[in-house]
Amino acid sequence: MGLTLTEKILKAHIVDGELIKGTEIGLRIDQTLTQDATGTMAYLEYEAMGVPRVKTELSVAYIDHNTLQNGFENADDHRFIGSVTKKHGIRFSRPGNGICHQVHLERFGIPGKTLIGSDSHTPTGGGIGMLAMGAGGLDVAVAMGGGAYYITCPKVVRVNLTGKLSPWVAAKDVILEVLRRMSVKGGVGKVIEYCGEGVKTLSVPERATITNMGAELGATTSIFPSDEVTREFLTAQGRGEVWTPLAADPDAVYDEELTIDLSQLVPMAACPHSPDNVKTVAEIGSMKIDQVCIGSCTNSSLLDMLKVAYILKGKTVHPDVSLSIAPGSKQVLQMLAQNGALADMIAAGARILESACGPCIGMGQSPNSHGISLRTFNRNFEGRSGTRDGQIYLVSPELAAASALTGVLTDPRTLGEMPDFQLPKTFTVNDNMIELPAPESEMDKVEILRGPNIKPFPQTSPLADSIDVPCSLKVGDNITTDHIMPAGAKILPLRSNIPAISEHCFTVCDPAFPTRAKELGKSIIVGGANYGQGSSREHAALAPLYLGVKAVLVKSFARIHRANLINAGILPLTFANEADYDKIDQGDELELANVRKAIEAGESQLTLRDKTKGIDIPVLCELSGRTKDIVLAGGLLDYTREALK
Amino acid sequence: MGLTLTEKILKAHIVDGELIKGTEIGLRIDQTLTQDATGTMAYLEYEAMGVPRVKTELSVAYIDHNTLQNGFENADDHRFIGSVTKKHGIRFSRPGNGICHQVHLERFGIPGKTLIGSDSHTPTGGGIGMLAMGAGGLDVAVAMGGGAYYITCPKVVRVNLTGKLSPWVAAKDVILEVLRRMSVKGGVGKVIEYCGEGVKTLSVPERATITNMGAELGATTSIFPSDEVTREFLTAQGRGEVWTPLAADPDAVYDEELTIDLSQLVPMAACPHSPDNVKTVAEIGSMKIDQVCIGSCTNSSLLDMLKVAYILKGKTVHPDVSLSIAPGSKQVLQMLAQNGALADMIAAGARILESACGPCIGMGQSPNSHGISLRTFNRNFEGRSGTRDGQIYLVSPELAAASALTGVLTDPRTLGEMPDFQLPKTFTVNDNMIELPAPESEMDKVEILRGPNIKPFPQTSPLADSIDVPCSLKVGDNITTDHIMPAGAKILPLRSNIPAISEHCFTVCDPAFPTRAKELGKSIIVGGANYGQGSSREHAALAPLYLGVKAVLVKSFARIHRANLINAGILPLTFANEADYDKIDQGDELELANVRKAIEAGESQLTLRDKTKGIDIPVLCELSGRTKDIVLAGGLLDYTREALK
Repeated sequence: MGLTLTEKILKAHIVDGELIKGTEIGLRIDQTLTQDATGTMAYLEYEAMGVPRVKTELSVAYIDHNTLQNGFENADDHRFIGSVTKKHGIRFSRPGNGICHQVHLERFGIPGKTLIGSDSHTPTGGGIGMLAMGAGGLDVAVAMGGGAYYITCPKVVRVNLTGKLSPWVAAKDVILEVLRRMSVKGGVGKVIEYCGEGVKTLSVPERATITNMGAELGATTSIFPSDEVTREFLTAQGRGEVWTPLAADPDAVYDEELTIDLSQLVPMAACPHSPDNVKTVAEIGSMKIDQVCIGSCTNSSLLDMLKVAYILKGKTVHPDVSLSIAPGSKQVLQMLAQNGALADMIAAGARILESACGPCIGMGQSPNSHGISLRTFNRNFEGRSGTRDGQIYLVSPELAAASALTGVLTDPRTLGEMPDFQLPKTFTVNDNMIELPAPESEMDKVEILRGPNIKPFPQTSPLADSIDVPCSLKVGDNITTDHIMPAGAKILPLRSNIPAISEHCFTVCDPAFPTRAKELGKSIIVGGANYGQGSSREHAALAPLYLGVKAVLVKSFARIHRANLINAGILPLTFANEADYDKIDQGDELELANVRKAIEAGESQLTLRDKTKGIDIPVLCELSGRTKDIVLAGGLLDYTREALK
Repeated sequence: MGLTLTEKILKAHIVDGELIKGTEIGLRIDQTLTQDATGTMAYLEYEAMGVPRVKTELSVAYIDHNTLQNGFENADDHRFIGSVTKKHGIRFSRPGNGICHQVHLERFGIPGKTLIGSDSHTPTGGGIGMLAMGAGGLDVAVAMGGGAYYITCPKVVRVNLTGKLSPWVAAKDVILEVLRRMSVKGGVGKVIEYCGEGVKTLSVPERATITNMGAELGATTSIFPSDEVTREFLTAQGRGEVWTPLAADPDAVYDEELTIDLSQLVPMAACPHSPDNVKTVAEIGSMKIDQVCIGSCTNSSLLDMLKVAYILKGKTVHPDVSLSIAPGSKQVLQMLAQNGALADMIAAGARILESACGPCIGMGQSPNSHGISLRTFNRNFEGRSGTRDGQIYLVSPELAAASALTGVLTDPRTLGEMPDFQLPKTFTVNDNMIELPAPESEMDKVEILRGPNIKPFPQTSPLADSIDVPCSLKVGDNITTDHIMPAGAKILPLRSNIPAISEHCFTVCDPAFPTRAKELGKSIIVGGANYGQGSSREHAALAPLYLGVKAVLVKSFARIHRANLINAGILPLTFANEADYDKIDQGDELELANVRKAIEAGESQLTLRDKTKGIDIPVLCELSGRTKDIVLAGGLLDYTREALK
C-alpha cells in the first residue's frame, strides 16, 4: 500500500511509538522556530533544561510580535532572546527582519523536514513540503534539546485540486473554501494534504497562504508536495540545493477526501467572528468599509504585495478608509522599495507599517467603534482587533486593495484584465539581519542580557511521596485559561516573568488567590467540568506551579490544559463521582497519602482524604507511561533533563 | 528706528494693544494647525463656539500622534476630526500623511504669515519666515473662529550666524549650541531671530530644525528671514508664488544678541535628561549604545533622510543596536522609495516606521532597561521614552546614523568626505491625502462622526452673582498639572471625553475627589504655592470645570494654569495673607457674596467668608479688562461667542 506524503515524512522521523492513527507518537524534529511573545519562556525553559547547544539541524528565533515596544519590557525581551540564542547555537532574526513564517519560508525551510514552532501558524512551511506544526514553548525547548515531539498520529485528508484559479481569485479563496466546507473544528487530529493537477498552478507563496490558514481548521498541519514550482522558488532564493521532490504515492490511501475545482472559486470573505463563517462577495452584497489592513503571515509575500501595488498604482485610497500595509519581511520590503511598488503604495495613501505581525495580533490599527475592517489575516475572533465591537472580514489582498479604493466591499474581478504576476527569477538575498550564534568554543563568553522583567523558570521538584495540603481555591464549571491566566495589554508584557504574571493568576475569579496560595505554600485547586478550556497558553499551568499548586482536582479537563499541567508537574485529578465535588470546601485540608508509590505502580484510582470533613473521596489520575514519568520527574523539563543525560 | 523681522510681522497682525514689550497684545492669526492628541478637544471647543466656518486664511488638522491605535479611541478620534473639519472649512491631513510641522512646512507655510498650532513645536514654520507659535487648543479654536490670539509682546533676541557648518556638522548642532548657551528657560518671553551671513548657508529644512527646537528654549517662537533659499524651497514645492522676501531692517534694535560661528561648531548631544544638557561628542567620550531613533518634527526632512541613507548604504546596523527610521511625511517617504534611498536603509537593517511622531512622544520603540538611545528628537525628559530609566541623547541624524553602524557614540566627521547633499529642484507633490473641506453650501450635509469616546465640551455659565459653596479639596504646595489631570497610556485616550477623564482628576492626591465634587455639585478648591505648575494641558482646568469647581483659592499660581482656569471660567483667587491658608479646612462652607458685581466694578480685593469657621478672609482676584470679561462671560468660549456675534 502506498503512503501519503504525510506518512512518508512521519515514517522518516518517528522515534517513539508506531504509525497507528490515534496513538501517541514521538517525532525527531529537524528545525524549530520561535517568535518573541512565546519565545522568552521557551528559552527560559531551554536554559532550565541545561543543554549547552541545540541538537536540531536548525533553530531560529524571530522577533515579530512585540515590535511596537510601549515600555521597556519588549526591548528587554528582544535582547534576552538575542543573547540566549547566541550562546546556545540558535540563529536570531532581528526586529524588523520580518514575520517568522514568511522569513522561514524564504530563507530556511526545506522540503521533507520536520519543523515545530511556538506559534500556531507554523504550518506555513507546508507550502514547500515541510511537516511544520505549531507547538507549546516547552515542546519547542525540548525539541531544541534533542527530545522528541509527541503528537497523536494524525488522519490524512486529501484535498484534490483541479483546474486553475480565475483572474483575481486568490489562494486565500482556496483556504476560505476549505474552511467553509470543513469548519474550524474539521481539521482536528488531521493533516490536510493538497494534491491533484491544480497544485502545479499555484506558486509557493500561494501554497503557503493555504497551509498557513489551515491552522484555522484545527488541523495538526497542512502540506503541499515539493515539485518543480518548489524548486524554482528555492532556486530564486539561492537555495536550490536543498530541494528534493516529494509527493504522495499514487496509491496512497486517505482517511477523507474532498475536491476543489479552482476554476469554480469566486472571491470570498470570512465574516465576523469566525474564520469559517465564509460567504462569497456576492452573498455579502453592498457594504461600506472603514479600514483595510494588508499583511500578516498569511498574505504578506512579495507576490501579494506586487498585486496590491498594481491595484493601487495611480489611485487614491478612499477618503473614508484607512489602509495599512505591512510587507512580510525585510526581503519583501526591500524589493518593493527597489522596484517602485512601495512608492506606488505610498503615493496612493497606504500607511506602511513595520514588517511584523502588527494588527493581526491586535498590536495597533484597532478599527473605530463598530468599524468594518477588511483584513488579509487569518483570524477574526471578536475583540482580537483591539476594538470590542469591530467587524473583521478576512479576505484576499486583491479584494482588500480593490475595496480600499472604492470604500465598499468590491469584487476584484471588476478590476479588468489581470497581468500575469510572476515571482522574480532571483530574490534579493541579504541575511544581514539574521545573527549567527557564537561558535561553541566561545559560548561561555556570551553574557545573557536579562532585564528586570525576565525571571527564571519556576522551581520544580519530583512528585512527593505524599501530598498533604489545603484547598486554596474552589471554582465552578467552564473555567477558561483566561480565568486562570488573563491576557491583555497590561499582563502580556509579563510573559517572561512568572513571579509577576502569577500575581494575576485567577484574579478574575478571586483577587486574593495569589496572596493566599503563596501564604499556604503548597495547595490543591478544586474545579468543575471542562476546566482549562480556551487557549493553549502554558502560563495557565506555570503560574499555579509558581504559586505552589501541587494538584488540580476537577470534574473534567480541557485536553490541552491537562497536558500543560502534566508538563508543569502538577497532578491532574478527576472526581470518580462528580457529586463529590460538593463535599469539598475551600480551605479543607486534603491528603493524598503515598501518592508517589501509587503513581509509580500505575494505579489510576487514588483516595483523597478530606481531613477537615473526615471523609475519603475516590479520585482518578489516568497517566500513560510517558506522562506518568513526566509527572514523577516533576514536569516535562525535569523529565527531559533526565532523558537527555 | 528700524524694526526686527518679528516686530514687522507683529505690527502687521496686531489687533489689540500696542507693541510695547511685556504688555498683552492681540494678534490676527492667518493660519492654524492642530494635531490629533490636542485636536479633538480644540474642535469640540470650536463646535461649542458656534461659528459655522473658520475665519482664518487656512486651517489644517493633522493626524500624527495617536497612530499606533491600540483600542477604538484613536480611530474614532481620527474620524471625528475628519468629519468636523470637513463641515467647518478645515483641511484634513489623513493618518499616514506625516507629521504636522513637516507637512505644513512643505505644503502650506507662507513667509510673513502668523500661524498658531495646538502643538508646542509649531515654531518649525519659522524656518520659512512665519511667525509660528504653539498654543492651547482653545486658543486655536478661538483663532479659527476669527478671534485674536493673545501673547505677551515679546523681547527679540538676535542670533548672529557667521561662517558655514563644517562637513558632517548639522543644523541640530546649531540649536544644541543655542540651548547650551541660553538654557531651557533662556527664551521665555522672547522671539529668537536668526540673522547674519551664515543664514544663507542653511537650507530651509536646516532652518526648520533650528526653529523647531527653539521650543526647548521656552521661547515664544524662533524665526529666519525669507530669502532666495526660501524661494527655491517653495518653488521646488510648486509654491513659488507665495514667496515674499522678508528680513529685519539693517538698523533694527534687539533686546539681546549672541553670535555663533557656524564653522566652529562640532557634533554635540543633549545628554539625559534635559535638552540644554549639551556636550560635545568628545566631552561625552566612548559610550556603547543600544538604540537609535531617527525622525520626529525636528529631523525627518528629505535632506536628513538622504544623509542617513548615504551613511547606511551597503552597511549593516550594529548587532547590538535597534535602529528605527520614521520619515517625516508622505512626500519624504515616497521620494525615498522612488530614489532608492529607502531600499538602502532597509538593506542596512533599519526598521521603517510610519510617517508620524511615534517614539518622540513615547508611542512605541521604548528602549530597554537603562538603555542608551540616540534620538534625533527634541526632548529627552526622564521617562518620556516610555522606559523610566532610559538614557536619551538628542543628536543630529548624521551622528545617529554613524553611531548605529558602530554601536558606540561616533563622531560623524570620521565618515570621510561629505558629498554635497542638495535638495531636489522639484519635490514630488501629491496632496491626495489632504482632504478638502465640503463647500459651505453643503456643510449641513456633513455628518459628524462622534464615537462613544467623544463627548461635548463641558457646560459653562456666566459668573454667578454670589458663590456659596463648600471647599471640596484642600491641597498643599507645588501641585502640578500631573496631579490635577494625570496623563499616561491609560488616561491619554480619554482626552476627548471630559466626563470620563474627570474621573481621574486629582486622584493622585485623593481618589475620592471626583465623586465628592460631583456630589457637592459646586465647590471651591484650596491650594498652596505654585499651584498648577508643569505642562500646559487645558484638561487640568476643564476637568475641574466639569466637576463643578467655581473658584480655586491658592497662595500662588503657575502662569499658564491660571490662564487656563480663566479660559474655563473658573475664578482664580489668591490669599491676601498666605497665613490664612491654614484657617480653611476641607469641607468648610465658603461664600463670596456679590462677587459678580465686585468683578464687574474692577475690584481686585474680595472677601471670602468661611461660614463654618465664622471668619472673613481677604482674597485677591486680579483680572485685566479682557480676562475680567472672560471670567464674567463664563470662560473664553462664551466670551468669544459673544465677541464674534
